[in-house]
Amino acid sequence: MLALHAADPDSATDILEVETLMSGLLGLHTGLAGAASLSHLANGGKRVRAKLGLHAAHSLGLRKGAAVAIGAASELLHNASLVHDDIQDGSQIRRGAATMWMDHGRDVAICSGDLMISASFGALASAPGAFLPEVLARMHHRVSEVIHGQIADLTAKDEAGDLLARYRQIAAGKSAPLIALPLELALIMAGLGDHVPKAEQAATAFAIGYQAADDIEDVSEDVANGGVNIVALLEAGMSREAAISAARSLVIESYRLASERALSLPSGCGEMLSAIANECARQAQRIVTPA
Amino acid sequence: MLALHAADPDSATDILEVETLMSGLLGLHTGLAGAASLSHLANGGKRVRAKLGLHAAHSLGLRKGAAVAIGAASELLHNASLVHDDIQDGSQIRRGAATMWMDHGRDVAICSGDLMISASFGALASAPGAFLPEVLARMHHRVSEVIHGQIADLTAKDEAGDLLARYRQIAAGKSAPLIALPLELALIMAGLGDHVPKAEQAATAFAIGYQAADDIEDVSEDVANGGVNIVALLEAGMSREAAISAARSLVIESYRLASERALSLPSGCGEMLSAIANECARQAQRIVTPA
Repeated sequence: MLALHAADPDSATDILEVETLMSGLLGLHTGLAGAASLSHLANGGKRVRAKLGLHAAHSLGLRKGAAVAIGAASELLHNASLVHDDIQDGSQIRRGAATMWMDHGRDVAICSGDLMISASFGALASAPGAFLPEVLARMHHRVSEVIHGQIADLTAKDEAGDLLARYRQIAAGKSAPLIALPLELALIMAGLGDHVPKAEQAATAFAIGYQAADDIEDVSEDVANGGVNIVALLEAGMSREAAISAARSLVIESYRLASERALSLPSGCGEMLSAIANECARQAQRIVTPA
Repeated sequence: MLALHAADPDSATDILEVETLMSGLLGLHTGLAGAASLSHLANGGKRVRAKLGLHAAHSLGLRKGAAVAIGAASELLHNASLVHDDIQDGSQIRRGAATMWMDHGRDVAICSGDLMISASFGALASAPGAFLPEVLARMHHRVSEVIHGQIADLTAKDEAGDLLARYRQIAAGKSAPLIALPLELALIMAGLGDHVPKAEQAATAFAIGYQAADDIEDVSEDVANGGVNIVALLEAGMSREAAISAARSLVIESYRLASERALSLPSGCGEMLSAIANECARQAQRIVTPA
């Protein structure tokens, strides 16, 4: 869903350097964990977080080494979370291929995710040292949030209480941290750490829109699996048709908010996130309610 | 087995600051993963790697912030590896209590290990920025080796070929990287990165001694589980008694080599590792062969 329409020429060439840096960090030692990680990356993925980081870094005038480090760090963390989430969720297919734990077994998948987390921090070795303490603190803060969100998601269906109130928290907790991260690291490295909360707000709104859109698509499946789904939650008080319509409004409103907040970031560093949010909002307008 | 006899007064007070830093990093967000990690740390562990790092940092004249960061980073990585290894090995007891996956389930244990890896890098945020790029590269290099060693260990029993030749590699691969790391980070932060290979050699010799000593103790259990064990490997060509005697010689020789190499490090920064190796060698001399 996260199509990328706004790639600038600089980012387009630098993405190759991100791939090279990621491969180098994962292939430091031969063995199954490195090989499985490289094959996971080779299976696809749109590298949205890497591209967001490259775009933000270029907009803010950072040097190429810093831009590539930000892109690789963000992308490796995202992929680590996918590999470990797939074990926990028992997912069998990702990007049209067997998930890593299905293909190589659970033990290799645990090790590969660990390797990718370590590599994401290792990627920062190619950034200049000046802002690294702040960058490391932010990275860990965001990883800690992602883990918190994943645990909340895994345990959500077992907990009583107001699920609707927890929906935004879970939706935001799962994906906002790693959408915000590339923008935040670029801001910190540009000495503009004060703007980090704005990047965080943009990413949070985006993540809620993204999750709710995904929920509309997967409602039947989620209901069958007992998963948390915005349509199912809304449906407790209205018809399926009205629930989908209300969810669609939430999606569009969230994306518009994300776009607006991303545009308020300095030097146009959030323009790519804004453009993606606008495109996603347009797609959401085409969602039809069942007859 | 890794008893610690040589703690200096500075290290003894600073270890409390290591504990505080680790707790802060793991408790950044409330939730099961943080709570499980904190409870894992509270269950014990001798903090040998933290103490090695504090001692090395003090010997080399590093400031307290750097010393505490090195201690916390090394200790968190070690504990992350224990938590994930216990899932993979199916181990049920550690430090006299249920392992994390037994107590909190596999999913929480995966997330907790991830959190500890991230926290180990996050700990470096309290070190000065000057040598951080080199420190990050070294950290990732060592984590990559540990993962490689763990995979080699998990797959060792499935592979044909000369197991004895692979023994040193597996034994060293599993524990040498994180014994070397605290010394290496201190050397790098002191601008003495050229001495890193000597720290690596000392840790490798120590790890082989440690693993072989452990093997002598666990030979019956390892043979029953089909695990790699030095006594079992040597026994292919000699009696059990002769195999234990040969393994004991390997243990003592390895510890002596570790001690000697650790003492060759600058400013006495390897004195604690040397003292531990000497104590372990003395213990190994008391191993008796079965009647």
